[in-house]
Amino acid sequence: METHEKGFFTEENSVEVVTGRNINARDERLKDVIAVITRKLHEAVKEIEPTQEEWFKAIMFLTQTGHLCNEWRQEFILLSDVLGVSMLVDAINNRKPTGASESTVLGPFHVADAPELPMGSNICLDQKGEDMVIHGRVLDTKGRPIANTVLDVWQANDEGFYDVQQKGIQPDFNLRGVFRTGEDGRYWFRAVKPKFYPIPDDGTVGKLLMALGRHPYRPAHLHFIIKAGGFETLTTHIFDPHDPYINSDAVFGVKESLLAEFKRVDDPQRSRELEFPGWFWEVDYDFVLARPREH
Amino acid sequence: METHEKGFFTEENSVEVVTGRNINARDERLKDVIAVITRKLHEAVKEIEPTQEEWFKAIMFLTQTGHLCNEWRQEFILLSDVLGVSMLVDAINNRKPTGASESTVLGPFHVADAPELPMGSNICLDQKGEDMVIHGRVLDTKGRPIANTVLDVWQANDEGFYDVQQKGIQPDFNLRGVFRTGEDGRYWFRAVKPKFYPIPDDGTVGKLLMALGRHPYRPAHLHFIIKAGGFETLTTHIFDPHDPYINSDAVFGVKESLLAEFKRVDDPQRSRELEFPGWFWEVDYDFVLARPREH
Repeated sequence: METHEKGFFTEENSVEVVTGRNINARDERLKDVIAVITRKLHEAVKEIEPTQEEWFKAIMFLTQTGHLCNEWRQEFILLSDVLGVSMLVDAINNRKPTGASESTVLGPFHVADAPELPMGSNICLDQKGEDMVIHGRVLDTKGRPIANTVLDVWQANDEGFYDVQQKGIQPDFNLRGVFRTGEDGRYWFRAVKPKFYPIPDDGTVGKLLMALGRHPYRPAHLHFIIKAGGFETLTTHIFDPHDPYINSDAVFGVKESLLAEFKRVDDPQRSRELEFPGWFWEVDYDFVLARPREH
Repeated sequence: METHEKGFFTEENSVEVVTGRNINARDERLKDVIAVITRKLHEAVKEIEPTQEEWFKAIMFLTQTGHLCNEWRQEFILLSDVLGVSMLVDAINNRKPTGASESTVLGPFHVADAPELPMGSNICLDQKGEDMVIHGRVLDTKGRPIANTVLDVWQANDEGFYDVQQKGIQPDFNLRGVFRTGEDGRYWFRAVKPKFYPIPDDGTVGKLLMALGRHPYRPAHLHFIIKAGGFETLTTHIFDPHDPYINSDAVFGVKESLLAEFKRVDDPQRSRELEFPGWFWEVDYDFVLARPREH
């Protein structure tokens, strides 16, 4: 009997033997994906040389991670996030032409049915936090304003919680809104300065971060989904560059181009115009959308 | 602001940014393991270039695999098995000196408290199946018999089920036994010829095998754990080389050296001696144990 003919598994030929079994796969894409996963997994095992106990720890980590997932919580997405996989998939799927705004992760707190509001509305419904006005333009890569752009905005409050995390404490749709630009591509609305917050850290992912000496915080940011006819939809954040966690976002969502300036404004005249009681934060940020075939 | 100083995530530097966060990990081994996993995971994502939908399918596959795990079922171990990871970990942890018997996977059906039986006992308690006698020696790598060796044996019946899978149908401890060799290192016992059987294929792993055009069967085998003072414990199988699945074990457990000859014997005199009603199968197989520092 010849081993090579029979194709028995050995440490040396492990990848070829395992992927060789998939010759009859009906789905070519699945076959290719599993071939890459098998190869990289075996490379990892050969480099790590886990003991049987370490292998079993990994099995139990995955099992417990699965058991934490339910209708409201997705611990495997968190795992993907803290290992940089979510941002990598985002990057691969959103390569932008030069000059276009960069994307970042969607995150788990978007809601589909936030109300459309008149430009300039204050999305903070409970008057808690430091007042903020955000304005800017939505442009194409040639610098021309894009009319009729829809901006879907959401953010955490000044304690780092989204409305959906504090039902009954925050008003429904607090710090959310949908805005539509006119011919000038301009947008503006009022809100409060968001605060950094931790990703859920009481599960397997939180324990892993702790063991790795990492914190669970995301730096303060506002979320945007920006849609305009004839352009690629942009899912992104803008960040406060002075946030204590700006250089160590637990999910790696920060990009240089997404840093906005949060300017403290002490101007009674402008406060009156904006119906703010005193000083406020001002953010001026332009978004640039790419056309589908522009890259 | 300089991107490199801040270490923001990009498609290009993704591995360095993510692993760079772990500089304060207290456990050096964990830090190294996570560094390899991160690097291989990012390499896989960059090669696969998954769409957001494919990424989400992977998340849901892992989630559903976790949800299938309970006290009696371990779908992540099955996944590790069918991707060849379990056998690879086994191979890495059980590199043997030349001449020593090779190991293979433990499998999920070992029970700790099987009865110790007199040599020659028949471990088949329900008289179902084709009679079989198994005998051989336990030797060291110099060919010398090892006295006082304990062989823990278990196998599926002629329908491919272990006793623990058919409580109330098979007698307790059917086709299990523990035997102890004398000075001559010889062992022998009676049983029935085992049959191939499928790994549990009604879960995510079964669906994956089906999509890959793979069957879920393991070729017929007997399990052994062989322990002797001063030697490395050997966890292995012996296989029927004429099994229809011998070249395509769903979990890659077959090794050339673990193929035994299952000889059909038609000899009324020997049948009478063995208390078999008619013809029977005979297996002659020697095990060779390694000393801990022999490699």
